Amino acid sequence: MMPGDHLIFLDPHPRDESIVYTPDVSRRLAEMGRVETHFGSRAPDALVDEILPDVAVVIGQTAMPKERLDRAPKLRAIINVKANWEPNIDYAEAHARGIHILSAAPAMAPAVAEYCLAQAIALSRRFGEGDRLFRTGGEAYGKSGNRLAYSLFDARAGLVGYGNVGRALAPLLKPFGCVLSAYDPWVPDDLLRKQGLRPASLDEILSRNRFLFLLAGATTENAGFLDRSRLSMIQDDACVVLASRAEIVEFEDFVQLAAAGRYRAAIDVFPEEPVPAAASLRDAPNILFTAHLAGGIEDSYRRMRDMVLDDVGRILRGALPLRMQPADPERAAKMRSR
Amino acid sequence: MMPGDHLIFLDPHPRDESIVYTPDVSRRLAEMGRVETHFGSRAPDALVDEILPDVAVVIGQTAMPKERLDRAPKLRAIINVKANWEPNIDYAEAHARGIHILSAAPAMAPAVAEYCLAQAIALSRRFGEGDRLFRTGGEAYGKSGNRLAYSLFDARAGLVGYGNVGRALAPLLKPFGCVLSAYDPWVPDDLLRKQGLRPASLDEILSRNRFLFLLAGATTENAGFLDRSRLSMIQDDACVVLASRAEIVEFEDFVQLAAAGRYRAAIDVFPEEPVPAAASLRDAPNILFTAHLAGGIEDSYRRMRDMVLDDVGRILRGALPLRMQPADPERAAKMRSR
Amino acid sequence: MMPGDHLIFLDPHPRDESIVYTPDVSRRLAEMGRVETHFGSRAPDALVDEILPDVAVVIGQTAMPKERLDRAPKLRAIINVKANWEPNIDYAEAHARGIHILSAAPAMAPAVAEYCLAQAIALSRRFGEGDRLFRTGGEAYGKSGNRLAYSLFDARAGLVGYGNVGRALAPLLKPFGCVLSAYDPWVPDDLLRKQGLRPASLDEILSRNRFLFLLAGATTENAGFLDRSRLSMIQDDACVVLASRAEIVEFEDFVQLAAAGRYRAAIDVFPEEPVPAAASLRDAPNILFTAHLAGGIEDSYRRMRDMVLDDVGRILRGALPLRMQPADPERAAKMRSR
Amino acid sequence: MMPGDHLIFLDPHPRDESIVYTPDVSRRLAEMGRVETHFGSRAPDALVDEILPDVAVVIGQTAMPKERLDRAPKLRAIINVKANWEPNIDYAEAHARGIHILSAAPAMAPAVAEYCLAQAIALSRRFGEGDRLFRTGGEAYGKSGNRLAYSLFDARAGLVGYGNVGRALAPLLKPFGCVLSAYDPWVPDDLLRKQGLRPASLDEILSRNRFLFLLAGATTENAGFLDRSRLSMIQDDACVVLASRAEIVEFEDFVQLAAAGRYRAAIDVFPEEPVPAAASLRDAPNILFTAHLAGGIEDSYRRMRDMVLDDVGRILRGALPLRMQPADPERAAKMRSR
Repeated sequence: MMPGDHLIFLDPHPRDESIVYTPDVSRRLAEMGRVETHFGSRAPDALVDEILPDVAVVIGQTAMPKERLDRAPKLRAIINVKANWEPNIDYAEAHARGIHILSAAPAMAPAVAEYCLAQAIALSRRFGEGDRLFRTGGEAYGKSGNRLAYSLFDARAGLVGYGNVGRALAPLLKPFGCVLSAYDPWVPDDLLRKQGLRPASLDEILSRNRFLFLLAGATTENAGFLDRSRLSMIQDDACVVLASRAEIVEFEDFVQLAAAGRYRAAIDVFPEEPVPAAASLRDAPNILFTAHLAGGIEDSYRRMRDMVLDDVGRILRGALPLRMQPADPERAAKMRSR
Repeated sequence: MMPGDHLIFLDPHPRDESIVYTPDVSRRLAEMGRVETHFGSRAPDALVDEILPDVAVVIGQTAMPKERLDRAPKLRAIINVKANWEPNIDYAEAHARGIHILSAAPAMAPAVAEYCLAQAIALSRRFGEGDRLFRTGGEAYGKSGNRLAYSLFDARAGLVGYGNVGRALAPLLKPFGCVLSAYDPWVPDDLLRKQGLRPASLDEILSRNRFLFLLAGATTENAGFLDRSRLSMIQDDACVVLASRAEIVEFEDFVQLAAAGRYRAAIDVFPEEPVPAAASLRDAPNILFTAHLAGGIEDSYRRMRDMVLDDVGRILRGALPLRMQPADPERAAKMRSR
Repeated sequence: MMPGDHLIFLDPHPRDESIVYTPDVSRRLAEMGRVETHFGSRAPDALVDEILPDVAVVIGQTAMPKERLDRAPKLRAIINVKANWEPNIDYAEAHARGIHILSAAPAMAPAVAEYCLAQAIALSRRFGEGDRLFRTGGEAYGKSGNRLAYSLFDARAGLVGYGNVGRALAPLLKPFGCVLSAYDPWVPDDLLRKQGLRPASLDEILSRNRFLFLLAGATTENAGFLDRSRLSMIQDDACVVLASRAEIVEFEDFVQLAAAGRYRAAIDVFPEEPVPAAASLRDAPNILFTAHLAGGIEDSYRRMRDMVLDDVGRILRGALPLRMQPADPERAAKMRSR
Repeated sequence: MMPGDHLIFLDPHPRDESIVYTPDVSRRLAEMGRVETHFGSRAPDALVDEILPDVAVVIGQTAMPKERLDRAPKLRAIINVKANWEPNIDYAEAHARGIHILSAAPAMAPAVAEYCLAQAIALSRRFGEGDRLFRTGGEAYGKSGNRLAYSLFDARAGLVGYGNVGRALAPLLKPFGCVLSAYDPWVPDDLLRKQGLRPASLDEILSRNRFLFLLAGATTENAGFLDRSRLSMIQDDACVVLASRAEIVEFEDFVQLAAAGRYRAAIDVFPEEPVPAAASLRDAPNILFTAHLAGGIEDSYRRMRDMVLDDVGRILRGALPLRMQPADPERAAKMRSR
């Protein structure tokens, strides 16, 4: 088959051109096949109907129920560029047809891991507070300024969820001599141990660590599994970083407990974004806020574009994809997305 | 000689009991010998005169010119617990008498390295600004909030000074895939290479790195060696962390250039501490301030006490010290101290 | 579907029960489904015909052309336990049906990597010769016994082929400070660089390294690609370890050049096994021989059984396999097997 | 003082010119001072008497009792290039005079560690036997040839002695996932833990590890401390590498137990060297012999010359030595040497 014969369809909303279809991507995809694109919203049904008979690769979150797969005999790959799986694909059916269902989410993991590490230290050492006090002339120097500070070195750290971010974060924590534990019902204990982490139950993770990283994905089954009673197991004055999805905690309780001084927290994700202007949490003490900034930096998007180009090229010439993450049908179907 | 025969003298000002003479230290030193202490100021001459004939170990920054060394025939070790060498010891003479001159500074290095790493990321990712904007309702989400953000992953990072802090920091930077260079006239190039760093000139370090860590000690010769012309070599929008001594930069220029947006900076040390209440730098943008908080946390002090106890024990039984850092006579004599 | 409804078929020849069907495997597979087995030869056609309509998982090297796949509607996975792909599967067709084609080869990689490392050092340090000389009373001590010895530390090492064994070997070479290069036309340069290896052409690998590891698989296209002219590029007195397949070198030339003193060699694989009793190579100097012992130790087989059980379990409950290696259809179809 | 004013004395026997005084060393030392040398035997008293009044640096094993130190007012450093301390220096007195007593032994450690690793694997995998069998036509292939083979991966390994060699060996064992323990009465437990080893008693080390590395130095107190009763604690069929000094084991018992099949052994050092031609141990099975070849390769000697030149240069300009190992007076005085 000639390169030009492959139809590549881009339907990446909410990602836009500046993220997934920069000039170099446009040029390189054009070398691999014929390209159809739709930006600004999900592609309308009419456009999808039109491309289905020929499409080889879908880059985006186009819904792909069985009846669409039935009409897409040449489809070889569906590539999610949004970082969360959506329940709008018939994963089992697509898998049974040998269609690669891939996610570019690993591209975002280094930036999120970097966020987790820096915020964990900022919390434990109180650097945010330190800057605030200095600017208002209330700073205390050296030992007296450090009464509430503690170190990540040699500390116990626990990961709730050991997916892409956990895998990127663990090597950053290793040189601190941290004792690392993880809870992830989807990951075999052996694999955790091989990578230097201790498998632990959720309750153990919450109750035995000075640093907690909440990195689990949101599924149809785990909404709010970190509820008030679970959050109450957290050690006094621990540092808790919430970096994956707000849905995994009872959010109001999570904020309240931090604000009340039970633990320190860094929060990057919210149940509603943008957060309402008058939301009371904006004043909450003991929390470092960021507005969903952990993953979405230009370095991540460039990495994502590279991954997509490499793997689309490989798939179209009959090789296995190497860089993106294949969907686990069992799991992807349970993922929640907004 | 009976244990009780060794005289151990503590004169640790500006360190106080809570840092160097906690109950466990008191108990363990008493097992090793007879202990004399002075806190709250440098020991008065009369007290020093009294202890000289018998003293085996000095823990503190007591002046030790030749004429005092002449009167201290049993002296085996002088242990600086302040982190900077002072010029008040005749280093060459002490060395020629086989007196160990040791510094507990390595105890502080992990905490300072942790500070450097967290602040470098906070600067490049603008997490401090992110929290401030969120609290005032001016936050932007995801990509639009990250326009000025960049990552430490795969970045070029340069160290000015490769002493204890540099050695503690390099392993923390390694898992980020950083290309590490260092400038340190006191460290052979071979040793830098062995530890995975590229030796470079000062100008190269300043001009070729996205992340800069200013970690050099202050000597009688290097005051302000990072002057305006050198600081002008720094890459636009680089992240610069000043963690060792304010004296190594022309401080006003350093602050001005950061405030003017030439680079981003984290500053932990100041020419005068406490900083005057009305100092204009308190309003400077593009800077993360802390009030000399990088090293002096309880974890550091506990590590310091452990090091001191271990090495005093070893020295008194005739073994080599293992944990503290020996003074380089050539260099220690040039160190400046406030 | 009830567990017992899955049909699992074992046809692992030349592997036998002691390798793939130990009592614990038997017990655990029986928990997952109904098990049919055939040992001692490839399963006869009649047996295969019988299982096809129901089989869910094939563990072994059963031929699976399209016409058999057509008769196996419930087939979800074919698992090669022999370490080399065979050309007897319609890889493209199987992939298009969403059938996992997996190899347990990664289970053997640690043992082979261990072999490579130990033999490389034994060659460069001449430990085999050292033992021989000592036993015959011809040993020389210290410096004079070490005239031909050199070290792996800080040496340049090149890998021809970067598959499972290369990935297991590279981390063993890293602490020696080796400069590592690799040639593998199937692996993107980026991935090599990410893992700390320099991509290089085959000629560069052969001519610029003191240590060479020949780890490429044998395909229909690469037979004897390391022919006399290529072997002549090898540095004088280099150490060359042949650990994957004899077919990738012109074997007689490879042995002759080593025996003639052009380089030192370790050889674990032969064009014909067992090697004829009177084969002249048995006397060849400068070579360390082993009789295809590099991978097949009990530790490898136990790891293989664990991998198979884990991934069969995951596949049967609808999850992705995690531990075995998926076939690259483009490549597997070109593999040669005896 | 002019460079030419320093007197550097070389008295390195049993090291000769080819090891310590190559043309580049000769040239570089001449730039640092005036050089006197004696090779082929220990320097005669008359020559030593002559150099004492002016000597600044002694490179070699010249006896230095107090009465000689009394006559050497300019002496700043004594540098052992033999790898074992000798009891012919008044260590306490030299230390009390601020004379650096240094050993170039760390230069040999990488080569010895490399020996330990390669022989440990060769023993456990039986590669020596494999080559022997192949050459005599008695080889068995694959699984049947590997009945006695086991792997270093994930094995328990114990170090008896954690000095220079242990420190070089531990990082080579790490990527094998070994659980590492060490026994060394001279090394604090904390330091072992910091470097990733578990401190253990001698009996625990012997009885609980599959791989044993005997790396202790010989002192006046520990001759034969690994006697028959201790050796009997070793696990059946363990791999034992003797790489430091024959004196630390009851040598005949050590050989007998290995030959009788209680464990496998690699032996590089002997109570008498050269070993008598007719010594019965030359026929002993289950042992890999080398004739004191572990450390003394050209790479080690080059590293030694570099260390010596660097540190002599530093000492003569008043700086601290960085690369060689300072004598522990308490310990060096107890060392035995032939």
